[in-house]
Order: sequence, then C-alpha cells, then structure tokens
Amino acid sequence: MADQPTLTRTFRLTAAQCNPQRELAPAHLVQYLIETATAHADSLGFGFSRLQELGIIWVLSRITLDVDRLPHVFETFSITTWVESYNRHFSERNFEITDAEGRTIGRAHTTWMAIDIATRRPADLSALNAIGSHVCARPCPVGKGTPLRRPAAPDHSTEYTFQVSDLDCNRHVTSARYVELALDCKTLDDYDRYRLTRLEIAYRQEACFGQTATIESATADGTTTVAITVNGQAACLVRFHLEPR
Amino acid sequence: MADQPTLTRTFRLTAAQCNPQRELAPAHLVQYLIETATAHADSLGFGFSRLQELGIIWVLSRITLDVDRLPHVFETFSITTWVESYNRHFSERNFEITDAEGRTIGRAHTTWMAIDIATRRPADLSALNAIGSHVCARPCPVGKGTPLRRPAAPDHSTEYTFQVSDLDCNRHVTSARYVELALDCKTLDDYDRYRLTRLEIAYRQEACFGQTATIESATADGTTTVAITVNGQAACLVRFHLEPR
Repeated sequence: MADQPTLTRTFRLTAAQCNPQRELAPAHLVQYLIETATAHADSLGFGFSRLQELGIIWVLSRITLDVDRLPHVFETFSITTWVESYNRHFSERNFEITDAEGRTIGRAHTTWMAIDIATRRPADLSALNAIGSHVCARPCPVGKGTPLRRPAAPDHSTEYTFQVSDLDCNRHVTSARYVELALDCKTLDDYDRYRLTRLEIAYRQEACFGQTATIESATADGTTTVAITVNGQAACLVRFHLEPR
Repeated sequence: MADQPTLTRTFRLTAAQCNPQRELAPAHLVQYLIETATAHADSLGFGFSRLQELGIIWVLSRITLDVDRLPHVFETFSITTWVESYNRHFSERNFEITDAEGRTIGRAHTTWMAIDIATRRPADLSALNAIGSHVCARPCPVGKGTPLRRPAAPDHSTEYTFQVSDLDCNRHVTSARYVELALDCKTLDDYDRYRLTRLEIAYRQEACFGQTATIESATADGTTTVAITVNGQAACLVRFHLEPR
C-alpha cells in the first residue's frame, strides 16, 4: 500500500449499518471519507502517528460532497482518495465513490488544516516534505462551492449539549456528529421523500464536552443552510440540498 | 466462510474511530458485535436477507459484556462469535474479543428475538432448521447477570428526542444509540478516571422518530443503573460498572 498516489478502500454496506431509507447515512459516509484519508496519510508517512511526533494533528476544515446516489443495503462500494495540493498550513484531498461496476456515484473535496496540539493554532507543515512528493495530478472531481454563511432568517432552531459519546480522540466533537446534527433539522418523512444530492461543511471552531450548541437552519428551493453555534460563535456551518426521490 | 460454527473478524482501531480516552468507545464495540453477528448469521443462511423473505427480523434483546480492557488506538483486535442456543422465538449468541496475541480482553453474551415485521410480535423460527445445526458447544464466556430494573431513586435525569440520525434500517432507534445515551450519564472526567468493566443492556420496546425519551440513572458502588423510558414505558434498561483506571 505504501507510496501510492491514490488509495482505494472497498466497503460492503451491511443491514446493521443502514439508515431508515436502507442507504449509507451521510454522516457514516463522511466517517468513511475520514478513515480512508487517514489510512492514506498513514501509508504515506504523514498520518496521525508521524504528525503526533511533531506535536501536530490534522483537523478537517471543509468538505464538499456531491452524491448521485448513496450506496444501498448489501451494496459493495469503493472510496478512492488522493492529495490535490498542500502548503505550509493545509492540504486539499479529493475522493471518488464508485459502485461495484466502477461507476462513479459520488465525489468529494476536503481541506485539512495542520494544528499545533499545544497551542491549537495553525502548525507549520514545512518539515513534512513527504506530502509534496505525493500530490496527484488527477483533477478535483467536484465544484468547490461558495462560502458558507449562517442562515439570515432561521425557520428552525434547537439546542443540544455535547456529551461524552460525541467526542473524538482529540476530545472535541467529531466531524460526523456535526453532520448528524445538521441533517437532523429535517424529518424522517423528508428523507423518505427526498434524497441528499449535495453537502457542504465548514468546520470553524472546535466544540468541547458540556458545551451547548444552538442549531439554526433555513430552507429555500431545496437547499438548507445550517449554523451550529456555541457561545454565539459558529462551530460549524453546513449547506445541503435535497431532491425529490 | 460458509458453514463455520464460529466466525472471527479482525479490526484495527484507527485514530479517527477513537474516543477521548483513545480507546474503542463501548457503543462502537456493541456495533462491531452486531456486525460480526450479522455477518455470521448471513454466512450460515439465517441472516437479514433470508429472514426478510420470511417476514422476520432479528432484534437484539439482551447484551451482557465484560471487558478486561478496551482496544486502544492503532491496536488490532478480533471478535469471535458463535451460536449458543436457539428455540422457536430466540437465539443466544456469544462473543470473545481478543488482542493481536490471541489473549482474551472481553467477552459477551447476547439474546436475539425473532420478530414478525408486520405485527412486531415474536415470530416463529421453526422454519429455520439451519440454526440448529450450527449450535456450538463452546461454553458461554460470561456470567449472564441478574434482571435489570429501573433505578429506584434516580440521581440524574435528562430528556432526549430521537432524530433521523438515531434510526436504523428498521426505522427504530439503533442499539448503539441507547448505549451512548446510557453511558452519557457520566462525564468526560469520569471516563478519564474510571474505565468500563461491565455493561448489561435489556432492549424492551422499540422507540421511534420524534419520541422523547427520559433517561434516569442512579450510581452506587461504581455501578450505574439507567432506564431509558418513552411515554412511561421502558425502551431500554442498562447497568454498567466503572473501576478506577
């Protein structure tokens, strides 16, 4: 697996992993993207272990995901990832999701920041020359989108206090949990009638155990804009689009 | 894989899958047990697909889990499962969790009910003679415990309304989500100082989208008893024990 400019992982969606529509839940898809990215970075020598030695962690900053359709129960699908670019402070990484016949069913672009574990400030990746030699010329498969903003006039608002089960190994709220909180603005009936086609996420600020988030959303023309704020500051901004099934 | 009286699956815990203590979160362990059980039942011909043809689903009814220690970040571990017994309405299934050197680090016993999809009542497994030929003589590795009850005098109470992201392919709250809700009665600081050694769960009644659960707990001598109730009825009862790290 070492030194591959792309890495492909294959999964089979079991019944136990499905959502009510018997598809891969979008938050689980995001988790699979993160795991595939982590495996690729580990294999190339700039993963979690190596960065931890330098006092640095990767923090996911931005996701743009287009899905033609989500994998359904018992389906085998693959995720391929590659590094698009890097500079001193961040790296861009792309993904293609393919079905068992190799047809592309989804695409994603992500931006990852390098953060100094002690100061929680942007870290310097200059020491990691390894990344540069693994930038891949394969083009970005998805439009990177426009900036995410808070909904100007929320039509839905709720609160949630972060619990132990919402936290990752860095003791902050997991990337996937924000996806769940954002998509949970809609009802079971909504997802029975509509399917997700696009999901954009900007992670702004790390949220911690015991903090209470306000989740505000507004929907127009099938597009929902969500702000998850803590103490008035945006922890995460989300925009997603639903189309009739 | 077909026709094996036991099935073993091997996992490697990545950084992206860890909890704040850099261990496998108990709810994820329960999810892995369910997935391993599902894979074994599928391979033996009495899994999700076959039962669905008969209008039946497996519903997890009881888990008793002992853990010497939880797998830690980057650790490779295995889960082995086998059928202990079955009768017309339910089946018992056991698990051993082992480290990379084959040392047992955890054990579990589970009870699964067969439910008629249409009536939500207990179904008849008599048609599935396949199970009988796969009962394994390997003994149950864990004490099955005493009945679970609601806490008599709760010292902690909270409410939670079930969202889309809490639901499984049967449109009910997932088994893992109840584990999270129960263990979330304790704080991040508690889990930094104490480790889980035993977890018992009784799933009593299926909860649905939009229902609000009351989560009441009481702790004495390191053992916490939790009742997750919906409309006054127990959806799930939990008892877990923490020991100093």
